[in-house]
Amino acid sequence: MLSPYLMVSSSSSSSSSSTTHFRARIRETDRQSAAVAAHTTHLPPSGVSALSLCHHRLSTDSTPAASSRHGRRLYPIMAVLHYTLDFKLRAPADVSATVRGLQSIFQEQEMTENVHDSEGHGYLATFVGKNGRFAILRMHSHGLVTFDLQCLDGDDVAQVDNLLNALEKKLKALLDGNIQRIKRLPALIRGSDVDRYWPTADGRLMEYDIDEVVYEKDSAYQNIKILHSRQFGNMLILNGDVNLAESDLPYTQAIMGSGKEHYAGKEVLILGGGDGGILHEAILVQDCVPVLKKFAEQGRTFDYVINDLTAVPISTAPEEDSTWEFLRLILDLSIRVLRPGGKYFTQGNCVNLTDALSEYEKLLGRLSCKVDFSKEVVCVPSYMELWVFYTIWKK
Amino acid sequence: MLSPYLMVSSSSSSSSSSTTHFRARIRETDRQSAAVAAHTTHLPPSGVSALSLCHHRLSTDSTPAASSRHGRRLYPIMAVLHYTLDFKLRAPADVSATVRGLQSIFQEQEMTENVHDSEGHGYLATFVGKNGRFAILRMHSHGLVTFDLQCLDGDDVAQVDNLLNALEKKLKALLDGNIQRIKRLPALIRGSDVDRYWPTADGRLMEYDIDEVVYEKDSAYQNIKILHSRQFGNMLILNGDVNLAESDLPYTQAIMGSGKEHYAGKEVLILGGGDGGILHEAILVQDCVPVLKKFAEQGRTFDYVINDLTAVPISTAPEEDSTWEFLRLILDLSIRVLRPGGKYFTQGNCVNLTDALSEYEKLLGRLSCKVDFSKEVVCVPSYMELWVFYTIWKK
Repeated sequence: MLSPYLMVSSSSSSSSSSTTHFRARIRETDRQSAAVAAHTTHLPPSGVSALSLCHHRLSTDSTPAASSRHGRRLYPIMAVLHYTLDFKLRAPADVSATVRGLQSIFQEQEMTENVHDSEGHGYLATFVGKNGRFAILRMHSHGLVTFDLQCLDGDDVAQVDNLLNALEKKLKALLDGNIQRIKRLPALIRGSDVDRYWPTADGRLMEYDIDEVVYEKDSAYQNIKILHSRQFGNMLILNGDVNLAESDLPYTQAIMGSGKEHYAGKEVLILGGGDGGILHEAILVQDCVPVLKKFAEQGRTFDYVINDLTAVPISTAPEEDSTWEFLRLILDLSIRVLRPGGKYFTQGNCVNLTDALSEYEKLLGRLSCKVDFSKEVVCVPSYMELWVFYTIWKK
Repeated sequence: MLSPYLMVSSSSSSSSSSTTHFRARIRETDRQSAAVAAHTTHLPPSGVSALSLCHHRLSTDSTPAASSRHGRRLYPIMAVLHYTLDFKLRAPADVSATVRGLQSIFQEQEMTENVHDSEGHGYLATFVGKNGRFAILRMHSHGLVTFDLQCLDGDDVAQVDNLLNALEKKLKALLDGNIQRIKRLPALIRGSDVDRYWPTADGRLMEYDIDEVVYEKDSAYQNIKILHSRQFGNMLILNGDVNLAESDLPYTQAIMGSGKEHYAGKEVLILGGGDGGILHEAILVQDCVPVLKKFAEQGRTFDYVINDLTAVPISTAPEEDSTWEFLRLILDLSIRVLRPGGKYFTQGNCVNLTDALSEYEKLLGRLSCKVDFSKEVVCVPSYMELWVFYTIWKK
């Protein structure tokens, strides 16, 4: 959730910055903590072309980020590097021959071996080495050999590499003819100062090129982080969820209709759009639901409603019913204040979360006013997954 | 490397498919195995707009992919799921109190404990449980608690979740007030039939949404895989390197000049462009270096040279000198066959590999003909990292 407040600005017909607002990719919302920021403005004649001008850096002097900036650390301190090396075999291997063949490597590394009773699940040994090194060798009975090596960051990289290389080479020789795949992943960096792992909305492991914690705070509503990515620039992460980065102009373009709209002289209601404090003339006022209700009662209407706040919750589980109801309320009110022929833009969810997307589309069929919709799949750089955006209009 | 052969097609002024070619992101090339595919064609008048028509699926009936297609498996078989749960602390914790506090959890799970002598590097215990479960608990002396749990795929998910949840809850209580960060990553899937981990060019861990192995073969030159990604479609992976996917039209657009070129009636020399077997009228002939040399000797020139083959090798290590020399040869010949005012397009490398990119730019200053260049950073969906493309012209 972006902000617990409503933002209302003075109408602006010239400020390019008023057209900039980023995504609020929300995984879990809560009726109580969920509140909405709304912003009313007239967009400048060159609405879309102005976008490229107003793709602000988050860490301007006016944000808390700048003051908390510390020197860049390219690598973690006192972290554990966790290496894995796996051999997928065509058939189970000869355990005793393989184990015997590897012995000299562990002896050379002065590692203390401990063979465990795996309770019938293949061979399992652990090795304690110097400098806090710890290794696990498993030969699964179905034909998979896994090797783990945990080292402290700051350990001798050449020695660690030597161990892994020697092991890979030896296993290649010992298992020759029986190897289907060898997989040696980049080491997991665990417990570092700079956390580089931010999963996708559909729960996949992603390692970002984060090199700096620019800002971190627990607000009354959520955990707020600004992390610096070497390629994406500053990234806003809310409750562990990548929300936007400086690279993500395609997000803003998509939620404004992908350059196909003519905003000149149009009235636009923006829900959300507060991330990064980009709306220069915004004044914090109040929860936007009452304001939307007031607009609806007054019969006030808009050419465009852009909802950059909540969209499709990630879960459709029963305990989330209140979230979906909240969504429906916002949607219902938004469509009520939309002029005939007007358009409602919003972001949806990761393209893989088909259940959540269907649920949202079902919801669109249950609004008090009949609507139709179209969707577009967009590649937003820092998301590392494709994202669905909706255009909704009155039938 | 895409193909060891040269492709020469009959000139085509109407086939939209002749304009389609994907990237060849090469990490390591070898002078011996490196060979070049070249394709000469006239592009249709609507060169760029034709692109969207010719973004072929890789798995058409004419490719080997289709015949080897098997039923989709959404999840791996006989793999090991490796869970991690880490607590980064503000200060070292009370080891004996924490270990005592966790004991009941491991007892309930009927896990056999084994405390290891860590040789002065904190507390280290391993636990063997039922169904092949194996856990590691480490309390590092600098204030980091790491927990690993390896389970066989097919194990009782609820029980595994319960163990992790119970442990997280208990550790939260035991370490209350001393916790800086809790990190529970998506489980690593190790040894599965469908390998989902394909690192970026700069060596970061990425989990793709691969759900099917469409095709796999070791050719005389490299390992070739076509894997299906739920969101990116079919992906071509050469020697473990993500080369292109069905989602990657932005790549093709970038290497053709991002829609700013008018190809009507122009002569275009395409180096590479063979992936996916897209050039319908291509005929395999021979190594392209001699052909480039012949063109250069004949004084034959082109309006555009598009090199979709090797670009910037990932490593600048001395042993790769031959690769750089090979690159220089291709570049030199390509610039020689470029008309004054003509343009040479190529892909570069991941935006983070600044050393390799600088090395390439230095190379541009050492060609026999003086050149100037510009670059563009492009988000290619399946790469999950930003990619640099070059435009080079004669000074």
